[in-house]
Amino acid sequence: MDTIKVIKIGGKVAEDEDTLNRFLADFHLLKGSKILVHGGGVMATRLAENLGIQTEMVDGRRITDTETLDVVTMVYGGLINKRLVAKLQALGQNAIGLTGADLNSIHSNKRNPVPIDFGWVGDVENVQSRWLKVFLEQGVVPILAPLTHDGKGNMLNTNGDNIAGFVARELAKKYSVDLIFCFDRKGVLVNGEVIPKLDEETYSELKQEKIVIDGMIPKLDLGFQAINNSVSKVIIKHVHDLNIEHAGTTLVQ
Amino acid sequence: MDTIKVIKIGGKVAEDEDTLNRFLADFHLLKGSKILVHGGGVMATRLAENLGIQTEMVDGRRITDTETLDVVTMVYGGLINKRLVAKLQALGQNAIGLTGADLNSIHSNKRNPVPIDFGWVGDVENVQSRWLKVFLEQGVVPILAPLTHDGKGNMLNTNGDNIAGFVARELAKKYSVDLIFCFDRKGVLVNGEVIPKLDEETYSELKQEKIVIDGMIPKLDLGFQAINNSVSKVIIKHVHDLNIEHAGTTLVQ
Repeated sequence: MDTIKVIKIGGKVAEDEDTLNRFLADFHLLKGSKILVHGGGVMATRLAENLGIQTEMVDGRRITDTETLDVVTMVYGGLINKRLVAKLQALGQNAIGLTGADLNSIHSNKRNPVPIDFGWVGDVENVQSRWLKVFLEQGVVPILAPLTHDGKGNMLNTNGDNIAGFVARELAKKYSVDLIFCFDRKGVLVNGEVIPKLDEETYSELKQEKIVIDGMIPKLDLGFQAINNSVSKVIIKHVHDLNIEHAGTTLVQ
Repeated sequence: MDTIKVIKIGGKVAEDEDTLNRFLADFHLLKGSKILVHGGGVMATRLAENLGIQTEMVDGRRITDTETLDVVTMVYGGLINKRLVAKLQALGQNAIGLTGADLNSIHSNKRNPVPIDFGWVGDVENVQSRWLKVFLEQGVVPILAPLTHDGKGNMLNTNGDNIAGFVARELAKKYSVDLIFCFDRKGVLVNGEVIPKLDEETYSELKQEKIVIDGMIPKLDLGFQAINNSVSKVIIKHVHDLNIEHAGTTLVQ
């Protein structure tokens, strides 16, 4: 197989119809094997609100009680995932929507309730790439929702960036893999300018100087874990720049 | 391949945890290749209610406006479908949840808005059985939600009995197929007793005498269409009787 691109998009992309259509048109133009991983937090929060379910967040992570698990299973596994599949089919791209439970592709462990009980949240234990490979070899795009299962009959809410990272690392054992995080910024910004390349040492400095903060940190941590685990390239770029070569920040060893 | 069993369960089964667990344990014991098709109307109606969306029904069919399409996509494609997949995985049965959009398995046409505009409701146009066969050959159970797509980027709300019927007929072109409708009655009842066998002539008489009425009629119409289109056996039985041989009503030519 040629290089596999694992592309992660945040929930904001899926939320706005025009942004989503533009992204999917770009995604469809990308040559070669590709996997799409999506988020959906914004839409889950809105559905929860409409149902009168309070969303509790700790360190930017959602506390997932039983009601909230139903909400994210519906929004991530149903609404967003199937919308992406149907839209890709309309572009002539065969696709399949998957959660970690489907084909037992991603098994997670429910997170330890100490010190903070996040509820039905899963930390990825392993990725079974067998079926992903079958789909890619047949030209089918797997679309992964940020949901896994515990093997005991429960779905688990699982961070989409983590899923993208674990899937990329698993496939990198056998293939050349690029991991691309698409979001609403141009990349890693220093003084308002995108740095085209970032190594781990510079990253540490930028963290110490509080130039890199908040949500960017787990993304970059994951990115460096990936390139330290055989993933060929990790790129962080704006969702509009998917097909612009050299756009965004590339992590280097 | 051995005989393929296509088993349809209604939304009521999925709604009650104990009934569902009991059904899935029985389903898991069934030998051979099998496909599960589920409904979910009751849970969709409840979610719609909780969201303040009014459910409008005509002749027992849901009018599916844009908001309602989102509701059924969430409930059928997300909540119920993934619950079934996760629970089967816990029993050691590999499974994959699919809508008609996934792998382009079921293409529908949006129903003509004249005389009644049902909104985003699809009538099955064709079933692509290629991937279903791949899954069955690999011992994976496909779990089909009552959702299809129009190939233009839209999901469509689609009757689960119809999906079961069309999938059974498509597979019957190449394999021996049994189609089993599980619901909350013992079969076709005449004077409170189940008739073990029903042919089309007797069915016509029972309809004329108003002994067979309401929701049973489309199910039986579908069943007779199936046996007239190479499906080996069509059985209508109680969800608790899945593994009881000779239970329920068997349609005969």
